[in-house]
Amino acid sequence: MPETPIIAIDAMGGDVGPEVTVAAAARILKQRNDVKLIIVGLEDEIKAELIRLKLTESERLIVKHASEIVAMDEAPALALRKKKDSSMRVAINLVQEGLASAAVSAGNTGALMATAKFVLKTLDGIDRPAIMTTLPNMLGHTHMMDLGANVDSGAENLFQFAVMGSVTASAVDNVDNPRVGLLNIGSEAMKGNAQVKAAEPLLLNSNLNYIGFVEGDDIFNGSVDVVICDGFVGNVSLKSSEGVAKMFGQFIREEFNRNILTKIIGFIALPVLNAFKKRVDHRRYNGASLLGLKQIVIKSHGGADDYAFSRAIDVAILEVEKSVPQCIESHLGALLAK
Amino acid sequence: MPETPIIAIDAMGGDVGPEVTVAAAARILKQRNDVKLIIVGLEDEIKAELIRLKLTESERLIVKHASEIVAMDEAPALALRKKKDSSMRVAINLVQEGLASAAVSAGNTGALMATAKFVLKTLDGIDRPAIMTTLPNMLGHTHMMDLGANVDSGAENLFQFAVMGSVTASAVDNVDNPRVGLLNIGSEAMKGNAQVKAAEPLLLNSNLNYIGFVEGDDIFNGSVDVVICDGFVGNVSLKSSEGVAKMFGQFIREEFNRNILTKIIGFIALPVLNAFKKRVDHRRYNGASLLGLKQIVIKSHGGADDYAFSRAIDVAILEVEKSVPQCIESHLGALLAK
Repeated sequence: MPETPIIAIDAMGGDVGPEVTVAAAARILKQRNDVKLIIVGLEDEIKAELIRLKLTESERLIVKHASEIVAMDEAPALALRKKKDSSMRVAINLVQEGLASAAVSAGNTGALMATAKFVLKTLDGIDRPAIMTTLPNMLGHTHMMDLGANVDSGAENLFQFAVMGSVTASAVDNVDNPRVGLLNIGSEAMKGNAQVKAAEPLLLNSNLNYIGFVEGDDIFNGSVDVVICDGFVGNVSLKSSEGVAKMFGQFIREEFNRNILTKIIGFIALPVLNAFKKRVDHRRYNGASLLGLKQIVIKSHGGADDYAFSRAIDVAILEVEKSVPQCIESHLGALLAK
Repeated sequence: MPETPIIAIDAMGGDVGPEVTVAAAARILKQRNDVKLIIVGLEDEIKAELIRLKLTESERLIVKHASEIVAMDEAPALALRKKKDSSMRVAINLVQEGLASAAVSAGNTGALMATAKFVLKTLDGIDRPAIMTTLPNMLGHTHMMDLGANVDSGAENLFQFAVMGSVTASAVDNVDNPRVGLLNIGSEAMKGNAQVKAAEPLLLNSNLNYIGFVEGDDIFNGSVDVVICDGFVGNVSLKSSEGVAKMFGQFIREEFNRNILTKIIGFIALPVLNAFKKRVDHRRYNGASLLGLKQIVIKSHGGADDYAFSRAIDVAILEVEKSVPQCIESHLGALLAK
């Protein structure tokens, strides 16, 4: 029987803090009775939230005090060196000590990556951990990495991302051999920058289900399961997509608010518009995985609300149940032994 | 008095050819009486389209025969060397010879760039021409470059893109000192890849209205007028945005087509949905500029319909009226003289 997932939550991370993270914990406890949560941070603030939400500490809901907070704009190296009792650090320590099976934080991405790497270490065969996220596509969802942990990635890094992404997608989606594509600016062999040209032979010679170059629009059309790219490119792609989505949302709102008639039409169309809104709700896809570490760390968007943050906790639970780091490790072992 | 714009149209380029390009020419002639068009390509096919559209050749509508066609997947170097009588080449030759003031093509991007560079030459001080496009944003529109002509751009290239983009935006939008941003993965100084870190000092020391790093979502929120990036990054960003837009469109259609009730609601909401659709219609923004050449060449999307292609012709006319290459040249002269 698999052990119960125990998730350490950095309560202080993100733009809001305990008001969001504790409410997200409450959501999870209501949804699942096979999960334990450790809420890490300023005890007083967390307990005040528990009272507000009419929750009591229990075997399934533990509060762990941590006296410091990593600021959202703090230099990662400084946070790592100076704030040894931060909620982020203590949550990750709990994972390292075996007292939790995964950590979730909405805090400073750079500090989270630096701390996780320092405390949990990277897997043998991985140079740099990378950030993977899940995005909706026309037929289901796409996994994409790296989203910004690594810039100027070399061919070897891209290859490692591909292995990690493929193994993780396979585990969490229960699919064999997910389709892996390398993000490029055309599907012809002659296209691309030095990075992708150097990475392509490694992917072609691998045992991954590598389907070749894919383009930006393929991320959203369902033709590929795992999209691999450098962190600079991935971050720009993701943020551009978010920008378009926001603009579309605003334009729809503006058109329905144009005059009294369009407002009435908007009222009539509300159920359909809400169904659409729910479908493209980015909060559902919150929770990015820091892959390549020996243990599980999930990064939530800093601006997440309690529903979005609970989705990041869900990702952590799923990765615990699927033993993602162990899956990656055994795959890397096979590759390194070759 | 400025001279009448004479636009050379590569009739054979694009996924469709004369059926689209000649129909687009007809649209332009109807809209404007101060423009002349030279339609270049297989005479028989073009004339058949003219008959179909009930158009006759005139001083304002000239057909120029060219016996060859550059295929959409043809290697640019090969097209340049072997197809000296292609519709694309002849259209660009007309510009070089002073018989046309700009060329428009929906053909093979690589071949168009190679041919334009060979025939028209680049401006002094420009290493590589770049592709600039216009995108909608929440408040108006954003110019963005490079969109894929140059990968692995160095700092000097990015700086040249910024100068060309700023001058062009200023000319076509009639604004002084448009806001120029460098696309990055965060606004903090420490963020970025080697490319942007090296380019930033050049921009800070320039007389451009450089507003610093911008992120992918800023392309669409109206906070910047000209977004500068490497062609690999720009192309991925643009295609990712297109992918999201298509997915949103499909989801909206699916939700309104879900059942008889949602279909009725969709019928009622049609005027509002159409207003929205018109607003985000990518065809309106068709027509990318090949900047850095001594004369004007505009690239249309290969899949453009006649409305979209007519918009690319509009871009050509505007750049002729604003003497864009001359504006860039005089600005570069001032920079080089420093």
